[in-house]
Amino acid sequence: VDEFEIIRTYFATQPETRADVVLGIGDDAALLRVPLGHELVATTDTLVAGVHFLADTDPADLGYRALAVNLSDLAAMGAEPAWATLSLTLPDAEPRWLEGFCRGFYELSREFGVQLVGGNLAHGPLNITVGAYGHVPVDTALRRDGAGVGDAIYVTGVLGDAALALNHVLGRQLLDAVAFASVRARLVRPHPRVAEGLRLRGIASAAIDISDGLLADLGHVLAASGVGARIELSRLPVSDVYRGEFARAGWEPALTQGDDYELCFSVPPGRVAALEALTPMLGCRITRIGEAVSEAGLTVLDASGHRYVARHAGYDHFTQHANKGN
Amino acid sequence: VDEFEIIRTYFATQPETRADVVLGIGDDAALLRVPLGHELVATTDTLVAGVHFLADTDPADLGYRALAVNLSDLAAMGAEPAWATLSLTLPDAEPRWLEGFCRGFYELSREFGVQLVGGNLAHGPLNITVGAYGHVPVDTALRRDGAGVGDAIYVTGVLGDAALALNHVLGRQLLDAVAFASVRARLVRPHPRVAEGLRLRGIASAAIDISDGLLADLGHVLAASGVGARIELSRLPVSDVYRGEFARAGWEPALTQGDDYELCFSVPPGRVAALEALTPMLGCRITRIGEAVSEAGLTVLDASGHRYVARHAGYDHFTQHANKGN
Repeated sequence: VDEFEIIRTYFATQPETRADVVLGIGDDAALLRVPLGHELVATTDTLVAGVHFLADTDPADLGYRALAVNLSDLAAMGAEPAWATLSLTLPDAEPRWLEGFCRGFYELSREFGVQLVGGNLAHGPLNITVGAYGHVPVDTALRRDGAGVGDAIYVTGVLGDAALALNHVLGRQLLDAVAFASVRARLVRPHPRVAEGLRLRGIASAAIDISDGLLADLGHVLAASGVGARIELSRLPVSDVYRGEFARAGWEPALTQGDDYELCFSVPPGRVAALEALTPMLGCRITRIGEAVSEAGLTVLDASGHRYVARHAGYDHFTQHANKGN
Repeated sequence: VDEFEIIRTYFATQPETRADVVLGIGDDAALLRVPLGHELVATTDTLVAGVHFLADTDPADLGYRALAVNLSDLAAMGAEPAWATLSLTLPDAEPRWLEGFCRGFYELSREFGVQLVGGNLAHGPLNITVGAYGHVPVDTALRRDGAGVGDAIYVTGVLGDAALALNHVLGRQLLDAVAFASVRARLVRPHPRVAEGLRLRGIASAAIDISDGLLADLGHVLAASGVGARIELSRLPVSDVYRGEFARAGWEPALTQGDDYELCFSVPPGRVAALEALTPMLGCRITRIGEAVSEAGLTVLDASGHRYVARHAGYDHFTQHANKGN
């Protein structure tokens, strides 16, 4: 199999063709038109075999997930996704793997009208790096540094289901078949909250997507904004499956494991009414879990009002690695 | 070592700060401003340990090269470089390696005023994926598909030195110490022809950078443009070192090995005078090596006017890999 033939067969045939793509795959670089009065929003994320996924993962799920985690970053900025690049390092050019990967990738790219406009194909240990690009009207992006004291803190959807699914797959805490079937999609096909991010422009004062765990990611918002926060465990939105597992799992998966790709965002008191008016238009529930305070740090309170101390702060690649050796 | 600390220490401190970067490293995505009336130009390229470089390569050379090959793609579009992203997958977070890598990367990014605006850090087999972004005024980009019958075909600089250096490193054809010292930089520190690409806007009808070898890359231009070409070996620009090695090396390294990162471009007859007027302003020589013809395919003529047939068409990742098994 020849490199250019792979590109022709699997990538040059991708389904989306946007009017703002002057030149897509097939030149030294892509030529793209950012709408007048908009800023370019650019992000990139990598999935590595054996670290972010198991070697036997369905390639369609990988293709979906590799794009999803990037679109989630655009969602957290309130950006409208437009284009993607794919840098694929592969041990072999297996047609079945490539076909499956593209199927998953294109399923999601089509949903959001994202066109694959370039990339790179190389030989080596499996590594999937996607770049995702979108735009926002000037000065409307949702950033991490805009939360103010008194802002209400919200999350979209439910937390912890992806973690339960991962813990099951890793043999840490087994679920029954029905429960696993219900949470599995949250792990292998996280749905980026793009529509929600767009709706939150002009309402949220800060936002982030929850990839490393609520505590770690909300912590980034607080650090960037120079505020603290108090959240209440009794308010954390979890699924019925999570509630059923609660006696064994406790709060840790929902607080610290990540992979949910929900949005966590802050809303100034004066805009809470606007947010509530918006709620029926959102594709998911939103839940107020606490508020920003002037005292630095993130305080987590349990149902009795006592301070809860999490065992882990969130996923970190290199400390996890260092710990492996201990 | 902690992932965020690595980002803070090595990447958040990068030297360039551009006014068109609304938000750089440290949020879910970067916010960037493309100038009014310009198109965004986006490219990405990957270097894999053991494939694109040897494991003991000086990390500063790797950092330089990882950015250089991307800026070369922007140069081939006639784009002005502005921003970069870096997705780094590392087996270990070695401070010495990271410090060296950044030194090389920043040396080049500073030269071209490119700001690192985001990226990703993951644990796994060494893989370096850089994204480079720039802009061109609408409708002025140099593309592969613009060459017309009768256009003169040019290359910048000299060809084949990077290949000689690689062949020496791989033990295929040893050079003496003086010769190697002279060509080594062409392999480890290819200098992207950004300034030349910018000057060629409005003059060249098509352009490409020579990464896979002159024959392969010019072949891409011809295929995209729907024309053929005839080039003459006696016109190929090579260095004194290359001339000294010619008896052993022949034309193959200059024609088929790539890694030169020179530009190959076509110029319509009516603009040749404008190109010649420009020559003193370019930082390198340019050489007319042939012309585009209506008959499909690339014909290479030797000094006696006979057709020369190259042994290899250019580097291809997956066929090279397949060949390894044979």
